[in-house]
Amino acid sequence: MSMKAATNLLCRCNGQILHFRHLPFLSAYNFGRRSQSTNADFGKSTENDNGRKQAIFASLVGATCVAGAALYWKRNHTPVAHAAAEVENSYGALRPELPTYTLQDVSKHKTRDTGIWVTYKNAVYDITDYVASHPGGSKILLAAGGSMEPFWNMYGVHKQDSILQIAEQYRIGNITERVGSEVVSGDDPYAKEPVRSPILIPSSRKPFNAEPPSQLLAEKFLTPNDLFYVRNHLPVPTIDPLKYSLAIQGSQRGAVYSLAQLKKQFKKKSVAAVVQCAGNRRSEMVKIKSVKGLNWGMAAIGNAEWSGVVLNDLLKFSGIDLEGTEKKHLVFEGMDRGPEGAVYGASIPIELARALKDEIIVAYEMNGEEIPRDHGYPVRVIIPGVVGARQVKWLNKIYLSDEESECHWQRRDYKGFNSSVDWHNVDFDSSVAIMQLPIISAICDPPEGTELEEGAEEVTLRGYAWSGGGRAVVRVDVSADGGKTWQTADLHPNGQSPYRSWAWSLWEATVPLPQGAAARGGEVELVCKAVDIAYNVQPDSVEGIWNLRGVLSNAWHRVKVTAPPPSS
Amino acid sequence: MSMKAATNLLCRCNGQILHFRHLPFLSAYNFGRRSQSTNADFGKSTENDNGRKQAIFASLVGATCVAGAALYWKRNHTPVAHAAAEVENSYGALRPELPTYTLQDVSKHKTRDTGIWVTYKNAVYDITDYVASHPGGSKILLAAGGSMEPFWNMYGVHKQDSILQIAEQYRIGNITERVGSEVVSGDDPYAKEPVRSPILIPSSRKPFNAEPPSQLLAEKFLTPNDLFYVRNHLPVPTIDPLKYSLAIQGSQRGAVYSLAQLKKQFKKKSVAAVVQCAGNRRSEMVKIKSVKGLNWGMAAIGNAEWSGVVLNDLLKFSGIDLEGTEKKHLVFEGMDRGPEGAVYGASIPIELARALKDEIIVAYEMNGEEIPRDHGYPVRVIIPGVVGARQVKWLNKIYLSDEESECHWQRRDYKGFNSSVDWHNVDFDSSVAIMQLPIISAICDPPEGTELEEGAEEVTLRGYAWSGGGRAVVRVDVSADGGKTWQTADLHPNGQSPYRSWAWSLWEATVPLPQGAAARGGEVELVCKAVDIAYNVQPDSVEGIWNLRGVLSNAWHRVKVTAPPPSS
Repeated sequence: MSMKAATNLLCRCNGQILHFRHLPFLSAYNFGRRSQSTNADFGKSTENDNGRKQAIFASLVGATCVAGAALYWKRNHTPVAHAAAEVENSYGALRPELPTYTLQDVSKHKTRDTGIWVTYKNAVYDITDYVASHPGGSKILLAAGGSMEPFWNMYGVHKQDSILQIAEQYRIGNITERVGSEVVSGDDPYAKEPVRSPILIPSSRKPFNAEPPSQLLAEKFLTPNDLFYVRNHLPVPTIDPLKYSLAIQGSQRGAVYSLAQLKKQFKKKSVAAVVQCAGNRRSEMVKIKSVKGLNWGMAAIGNAEWSGVVLNDLLKFSGIDLEGTEKKHLVFEGMDRGPEGAVYGASIPIELARALKDEIIVAYEMNGEEIPRDHGYPVRVIIPGVVGARQVKWLNKIYLSDEESECHWQRRDYKGFNSSVDWHNVDFDSSVAIMQLPIISAICDPPEGTELEEGAEEVTLRGYAWSGGGRAVVRVDVSADGGKTWQTADLHPNGQSPYRSWAWSLWEATVPLPQGAAARGGEVELVCKAVDIAYNVQPDSVEGIWNLRGVLSNAWHRVKVTAPPPSS
Repeated sequence: MSMKAATNLLCRCNGQILHFRHLPFLSAYNFGRRSQSTNADFGKSTENDNGRKQAIFASLVGATCVAGAALYWKRNHTPVAHAAAEVENSYGALRPELPTYTLQDVSKHKTRDTGIWVTYKNAVYDITDYVASHPGGSKILLAAGGSMEPFWNMYGVHKQDSILQIAEQYRIGNITERVGSEVVSGDDPYAKEPVRSPILIPSSRKPFNAEPPSQLLAEKFLTPNDLFYVRNHLPVPTIDPLKYSLAIQGSQRGAVYSLAQLKKQFKKKSVAAVVQCAGNRRSEMVKIKSVKGLNWGMAAIGNAEWSGVVLNDLLKFSGIDLEGTEKKHLVFEGMDRGPEGAVYGASIPIELARALKDEIIVAYEMNGEEIPRDHGYPVRVIIPGVVGARQVKWLNKIYLSDEESECHWQRRDYKGFNSSVDWHNVDFDSSVAIMQLPIISAICDPPEGTELEEGAEEVTLRGYAWSGGGRAVVRVDVSADGGKTWQTADLHPNGQSPYRSWAWSLWEATVPLPQGAAARGGEVELVCKAVDIAYNVQPDSVEGIWNLRGVLSNAWHRVKVTAPPPSS
């Protein structure tokens, strides 16, 4: 079945015939990277320590994955919210007549060969026979061997009677226990870390760093908080919002603000903006030659709506004049502390602060909620168009200085070098701290290693594209022949000005497979590359931009999939 | 002699022993591109039709080429200006006892094999035996077969008794006639074109388009007016400065300004800024697959100091509020007219106009002089960081509009496409007009095809680097092994803010030749690539950015030279 054929597929679900415009291929998902995380993660509760509800973004439907359920709901004329409330307590409960499994037992069932098991509340389901008819396609496999809850929390329409009834048909048992936070010793600085969504794929645990599966990233313009990559340099501080304060230093009168003052005393502004780690897509550099850094895939990037106080409002109110000052840098300090007591900090050049003074947000909300602990609760600074490392979380202090931040991550990290510089000859003082990031794009779906449908004649690619400095993405080119021929993708407008384009642009393209690719049963190399409003382009090769820290990895993005021959 | 050895060379010149820190190699210059121009050009007078003096920038010494003469002058304690005035009429005069040659005769003598002849006023010199001892190195060969005058006008210290005495020693004859403007018919729209410096290498004559030899480009931070590339789309209009007026339209009161008003009524601001053609380096794209456009080398770019009125001052005075307007574009119209009567025009998006409102200059001076006719006399607009095509020359009108300029060159040209778009499927409406240009760099010296010194162990590269949007160049990497290994070049600071860096950065690097390159007598591929403050990089290959119009050609710049084996 070709991808084209799939788009008009009729699918039987719970006795109803459903139409789907875009049904992604149903082939096996590559769990290679997923397996890097420990199995214990998969059973974690998704309720965080603040007890905030997790069913966020349930209203952001539209995702491929929920099309079936939404359509089903429409046919039954049942309001989702009502159904969800009604059924939330009635499924997944303990059924003493069924056998009991440990989370470890469940985690061993991830493939068709072993059987595909998932959990929901106290229930264990064997969904091996269901996955082929799942309206959301292969994404259901992201939960294989683990909990369905984070996915269902994200795609809220699953939580309704009819859907849970289907699940319960596949019930095989109970799980032994629910797992909360990891048990840690009292003197572990990471003892009070927040509980994270098990969807995230960790690249390090202490400090915690993790990214979502790339397939989910291009689903939504605003990345759900739970899915947003986490990049922590130090333990997450525990901050009492009532005791929290932000100091603005450097004017004669100075100022200290409580969280309540920030919220009430100043006008609230919202901006949709990308935060991206300088090391996003580092794993591609590692393939050329080893680098020092977390082995990020392509998902150390996210796009959220940030709300808070405009920096310049705060500075002016505090007696600081960005235009008039002779200081050279604007410094931000966080509350996350290293073993030696030093806090995380960063600075931006005063010219950049001036240019962005009405764009920088001292943010207390992320996608309409309190900022989660991993992302800087209660306050972080958002500097649109600039690398994540400067957007200090758990913000404690802002001041002007003649010198840039003395923090390790400002002066001895997050800088670019050419590929002939290595650890024996690197001079960090010779390079400028990364601020605005260059144009980047990535194919989020299909993932590497995907086996396309038998006899497929075309393939649909989806991904993101973004450029730093507010430069809008004006074109994304895609190729299904390794870059020999190109097609222009459909760009989804982000609604922002072309010169103040802080959010990313999602894109989609259906590209014919090279003639005879399927017949040959051969490998197909998918490629994407983007262009911004200043006609900056991505470099062709990873080799040309390799650097010892593996930052700024924005070469053309390449994904290999296979086109199996038609069955004869 | 290796390049290193050359840097401490003692050179005998007119009986004096002179020291030179940087003596470029003295090997033969590749005249391949030069030969595209007709020989008639080489004898043209450099005085233009306004009778303005051409000995400009003589005071901008410091160039490698004049080091010898300057040092000589210092030893003789003779003020240059005095010497120049004294000798200007005493050399190069007709000497009836000598034979007479035509300019065509002279043009046949460009190489060591044919003998190297040059002219100065009425004189013909055979300098074949002199070139090896020329303190300025091989640059003297740029004049081979033609006139020395444009070069001596540029490097004014040559015009002194001692230098002209040397020249007169090589005198072999007189030339038959001096050549003025081309003879043209009365109804030729190009009948009143300005006379150009014969240094310029034309890529088209009607309209006139030309660039300087690349070797000269990296000599000076401010490109001399005579050397500045010329990109005309239509005939150069003849404008009486007393009748000139600039109309600012769109406010209720409107406004029309004379040249005198612009100069007296508003504060004068100067900015050093690059103007670059979108087609610069197009000739590299042509090698991949033919494109439509002038065959520019790497010198369709220049950096000048522009002086005039700040756009926003003019708009505000005329009752136009850029911040408040709901119009979407700022339109500029020139006075150069096509055969159908339509004038050249361009526009920039209002967001860009706002961001640059204090940077855009309605300029009436270029490098401290009246703007030459080819560059927009008496007034052009300078929009720093933006492609040359929008910096309308012979500026006649500025107004706000809901639509972008309807000019052909705004809507049907100067746009980017991927390499699979060709003339059968191009849709100009689908692409955005080029505004800010991406990061670019080029090796100006040594030029392609240079034969390095016998047994050379290293090579010195010099060039330019620049990025649009005011983004400073932060690094230039150079390679002498085709891009396998890299070295960071020395960047000459341009003195501007890193986020308002409108001028280019010149750079220099001495790079060891690959082990055994000389012994093998092989080809050496020199490469450069630059990085801007937003860590934008140049793409690796021309193939990846090829487009049907051959614009935006900013791949890594590659120059092939040969390293001859040491004589045994």
